[in-house]
Amino acid sequence: MSINPLSCTTTYRVPYADTDQMGVVYYGNYLTLFERCRNELMRSCPMTYREMEAKGLALPVIEAHVDYKRPALYDDLLELRGTVHSAKGCQIRIDVDVLRDGELLAKGYTVHCCINLATKRPTRLPKELCEQFNSTNKI
Amino acid sequence: MSINPLSCTTTYRVPYADTDQMGVVYYGNYLTLFERCRNELMRSCPMTYREMEAKGLALPVIEAHVDYKRPALYDDLLELRGTVHSAKGCQIRIDVDVLRDGELLAKGYTVHCCINLATKRPTRLPKELCEQFNSTNKI
Amino acid sequence: MSINPLSCTTTYRVPYADTDQMGVVYYGNYLTLFERCRNELMRSCPMTYREMEAKGLALPVIEAHVDYKRPALYDDLLELRGTVHSAKGCQIRIDVDVLRDGELLAKGYTVHCCINLATKRPTRLPKELCEQFNSTNKI
Amino acid sequence: MSINPLSCTTTYRVPYADTDQMGVVYYGNYLTLFERCRNELMRSCPMTYREMEAKGLALPVIEAHVDYKRPALYDDLLELRGTVHSAKGCQIRIDVDVLRDGELLAKGYTVHCCINLATKRPTRLPKELCEQFNSTNKI
Repeated sequence: MSINPLSCTTTYRVPYADTDQMGVVYYGNYLTLFERCRNELMRSCPMTYREMEAKGLALPVIEAHVDYKRPALYDDLLELRGTVHSAKGCQIRIDVDVLRDGELLAKGYTVHCCINLATKRPTRLPKELCEQFNSTNKI
Repeated sequence: MSINPLSCTTTYRVPYADTDQMGVVYYGNYLTLFERCRNELMRSCPMTYREMEAKGLALPVIEAHVDYKRPALYDDLLELRGTVHSAKGCQIRIDVDVLRDGELLAKGYTVHCCINLATKRPTRLPKELCEQFNSTNKI
Repeated sequence: MSINPLSCTTTYRVPYADTDQMGVVYYGNYLTLFERCRNELMRSCPMTYREMEAKGLALPVIEAHVDYKRPALYDDLLELRGTVHSAKGCQIRIDVDVLRDGELLAKGYTVHCCINLATKRPTRLPKELCEQFNSTNKI
Repeated sequence: MSINPLSCTTTYRVPYADTDQMGVVYYGNYLTLFERCRNELMRSCPMTYREMEAKGLALPVIEAHVDYKRPALYDDLLELRGTVHSAKGCQIRIDVDVLRDGELLAKGYTVHCCINLATKRPTRLPKELCEQFNSTNKI
C-alpha cells in the first residue's frame, strides 16, 4: 500500500446551474471542475493554495485544455481525479480526469506559472511542492 | 425632453452558457444581468463603479430580490432597464426590469451598503451620487 | 429521535470560480447554493427532482430572495440548511440558510410553481410531497 | 474591400461576475467568451446556431484549448475575434483571440462535432457552411 500525495480523487454532484439547454454540463464548467480537483489535490500537499496566497504566491493558469468524451448530466455524482504531471522551475502542470461510474467523460490539464503577488513576476515553485513531487517520482 | 441619469437601458445577448436544461436562462444568472445593468447605470453617473473603488469605496449587495414572469431564452436580445429607487445615508436600492421585445420577463432589485474598503465599515454614499438623485427627484 | 425529511443540511466547499474581485463569493452564486440545497432536500423526499422531471413535472422558480449578512470566502466549507416553508396547491417555498462554523452568512428563499412540462401550465404539486409536508407539520 | 463571413469581431464588457479574487477574469470564463464569439460568427453565416438546432443539428464541443497571456479585468471592453480554422466532414474548428485595446490577452480554439439531435450520432456539417468556407479559402 502506498499513498501518493500528488494525486487526488474527489466527488462533485452536478446542479442544474451547470447544465445548458442541450441537457448536459456546459463545456466551460469543466474548468471549474478541474479547479475543484486541484484545490483538493493541494489540500493534501504540504501547502494548501490558501497558504500559498498567504505567503504572497499565486498560481495563475497559463494554459488549459479539455477533451470531451461523453456528456455529464444533471444530478450525476462525478469523480474528479487529479495528478501532478510535472513541477519544475516556475511551472506546474496538473492533469484531471472526470468520470461517472468509472467511465471517462472528459480529461484535460492546466499549466500554472508560480508568481510573486507583490511583483507580479514569475518565481520558483515552493521547494516543499517540488521536493515532494521529485521524491515521489524517483521510484 | 429630459435626460434622467438615474435610469439606464442596456442590451444583452443570451449565450448558451446562461441556459439550463429546462431550455431557459438559469434563475441565478438574472443577478448577473442586474449587475450588468447597474454597471451601465453608474457609467452614466458622475462616478463609475471603478472610480468608486479607486477612492476606497465599495457597494456590496445586502439584499437581492427577483420576480420571474416568463423565461428568457438562448440568443434572446434582452433589454435591461435600471433605475435608482432610493439613495440616502449608506444605502442605495436599484431596480431592474428584464424585457424582450417590450415584454417584461423578470423584475427585481438589489440593495447596496456603501462601505469603506480599508475599514470594511459602512460609510455615507458619495455626495455626487446622492445630490444627483435628490435634484432629479425634486421635480 | 425523529427524522424530518422536509429539512436538510449539506456542505459545500467554495472554489475560486465562485469569488469575485472583492475577495468574496459573488452575490449571484448564492442562488446556485440554494439550488444545491434544494436538490439534497428533494433527494430525501419520496420523489427526487430528477424523478419529478421523468414524470413530466418541473418546478421553475417564480421568486427568489437573498439577505446577505457576512461574506463567504474562498475555500470556506459552507453549511447549507434548507427547509420547506410551505407547500400547497401549485406552489412550494423553500428557505435556505448559509452558514460557516455556525455563523449565519446569508439567508433567503425561493418560490416554485409546479408545471406540467408538456402543457407548460401550472399543476398541483405531487401528492407525495404535500402529504409529507402536512403530516410533518400537524404535530 | 472584402467581407469574409468566416471571421467575426464582437465586443464584451466584463462584469464583476466574471472576475475572481485574484482581481482578474476567472480562467474558465474565457470559454464563455469563445462561445459568445462563435454565436456572432454564426449569425453572419447562412445558418445561425438557433436555425441549426431547429433543423435537428447541434455542434457540441469535443475539444477546447486556451492560452492565457495577460489578465482581462473588470469593466474592460474586450474585443473577441473568431475565425473558422477548418470545416470538413463532421468537424469544425473555430479559433478565438481575446484582445483589449489591440493587445492580445488570450487565444484558443474549440473543435465541434456536428451531431443529429435525434440519433445523437455524428453527421456531416450543413453544406451551406462548408461551401462558404471552401469558396472563401480558395483564393
